[in-house]
Amino acid sequence: MEVDQNPRVLQQKLKALKKTGKSVGLVPTMGFLHEGHLSLVRQARRENDVVAVSIFVNPIQFGPKEDLASYPRDFERDAALLEAEGVDFIFAPEVADMYPEGYGTYVDVEGEVTGRLCGASRPGHFRGVATVVSKLFNIVAPERAYFGSKDAQQVAVIRRMASDLNFDFEIVACPIVREADGLALSSRNVYLSESKRQDALVLSQSLFMAREMIEAGERSAFAVRDAISERIRQVPSAEVDYIEVVDAFSLEPLETLSGTVLIALAVKVGKPRLIDNLQIEVK
Amino acid sequence: MEVDQNPRVLQQKLKALKKTGKSVGLVPTMGFLHEGHLSLVRQARRENDVVAVSIFVNPIQFGPKEDLASYPRDFERDAALLEAEGVDFIFAPEVADMYPEGYGTYVDVEGEVTGRLCGASRPGHFRGVATVVSKLFNIVAPERAYFGSKDAQQVAVIRRMASDLNFDFEIVACPIVREADGLALSSRNVYLSESKRQDALVLSQSLFMAREMIEAGERSAFAVRDAISERIRQVPSAEVDYIEVVDAFSLEPLETLSGTVLIALAVKVGKPRLIDNLQIEVK
Repeated sequence: MEVDQNPRVLQQKLKALKKTGKSVGLVPTMGFLHEGHLSLVRQARRENDVVAVSIFVNPIQFGPKEDLASYPRDFERDAALLEAEGVDFIFAPEVADMYPEGYGTYVDVEGEVTGRLCGASRPGHFRGVATVVSKLFNIVAPERAYFGSKDAQQVAVIRRMASDLNFDFEIVACPIVREADGLALSSRNVYLSESKRQDALVLSQSLFMAREMIEAGERSAFAVRDAISERIRQVPSAEVDYIEVVDAFSLEPLETLSGTVLIALAVKVGKPRLIDNLQIEVK
Repeated sequence: MEVDQNPRVLQQKLKALKKTGKSVGLVPTMGFLHEGHLSLVRQARRENDVVAVSIFVNPIQFGPKEDLASYPRDFERDAALLEAEGVDFIFAPEVADMYPEGYGTYVDVEGEVTGRLCGASRPGHFRGVATVVSKLFNIVAPERAYFGSKDAQQVAVIRRMASDLNFDFEIVACPIVREADGLALSSRNVYLSESKRQDALVLSQSLFMAREMIEAGERSAFAVRDAISERIRQVPSAEVDYIEVVDAFSLEPLETLSGTVLIALAVKVGKPRLIDNLQIEVK
């Protein structure tokens, strides 16, 4: 396994490998890896000759009042985990490698896909995501890029961007990985105290409840949303940022459930803001 | 020579060719080709195994009051010229091929490089340019891309974007091609009446005068700018949009001339707005 910090160096190494016919899979991460990330790495490992994992806490996707400075990091542990998964390249640039002096180019994804959900409560967030992912796409030029479905809106934004800008490769969205009790894995779970961790189960539990309602025949988005809201209100430390019931591809809000439905939550549980979601096919 | 309208079809054809080790040169144009374009095509032909020329009047780089509807077009003539130059692929998409229903991604280049000159008088113009060029770069994935130096700021913006977004290929800027009397070739010259065409010579003549001043020792940007302004004022039909004396790479305004200096003009001569520039090494 090689560790590269310089974009140009990694780009040229991968270019040489691709000339020999090797396929490359990219797993972009912000590090502090958990089983969710590792599930992406394993799928990339199965489907490609060469696997590159980027570890970069991208400053431009954090708002001024967000947790950039305190975002958890542990490069040594991450590197050991990736080595054990048979990863070929870690790309670990510093901020100045990605955004050198004079940097000025940003990728904006406009419309429904960024206007709601996290796009509404985190202005500039998806501009930061789309920009860094464009850069990673050009540096690695993968055959396939792997993203976790926990960030469902991020997947929708990246699909939109990749299609709009004619990037020529496959975007693979992998299922959410959960703890045994249902909590979706997140690097930010480390912020949770033992009691808040218990409170945080309300995200997944309210989603599972919504799934049961829909499986029992409920087709009103309002009714589903309302039941989730009611369920979360029972946990005093939980403060809803949004509860959205939308089309999974366009992220347009639904009134009547049909097609591929995404139910997405963002909830502050004490200090950390957690997200979770459920995707369900409705006939 | 093949003509493709569908981005995906061209992308896959070129991908197959690149897999056999062929290098690809891209010449992006808005059609209505003149000797300036053909000089780019000839250089691309000399330097690459495969040459692709795009012909696309990109609507998103035109402002609401600009000449999108009347922009001159003649595909049959363009195709014949390119066939004669030994071009391999013409990429001629329709607007809906490039910006299908639901399109929402734009590339913004911020800072000095877009804030002044044409960026100031044509808001949104370089966003349109950077977006379409990003798309063309991804569709064609060339080894080299060729641009005319008449659009000096466009070259600076594209260099900035390509470097910022880690595009992995060479941006080649080719010299301005002029008529015998000095008029820089432009598809928009077709708008000029015989008398206005004569008036339009003031752009190149004032630039040549500036070059003589600098060669004779003038180092004050203000003096050069003032002399150009005075010279243009002698032509009643000519209305200055801007006269800028800047660093050729950063486009930052200069007080004292040194390094690679760009003198750039935009002047309305009757209806059409014409641009011209001079790049000069100053010790």
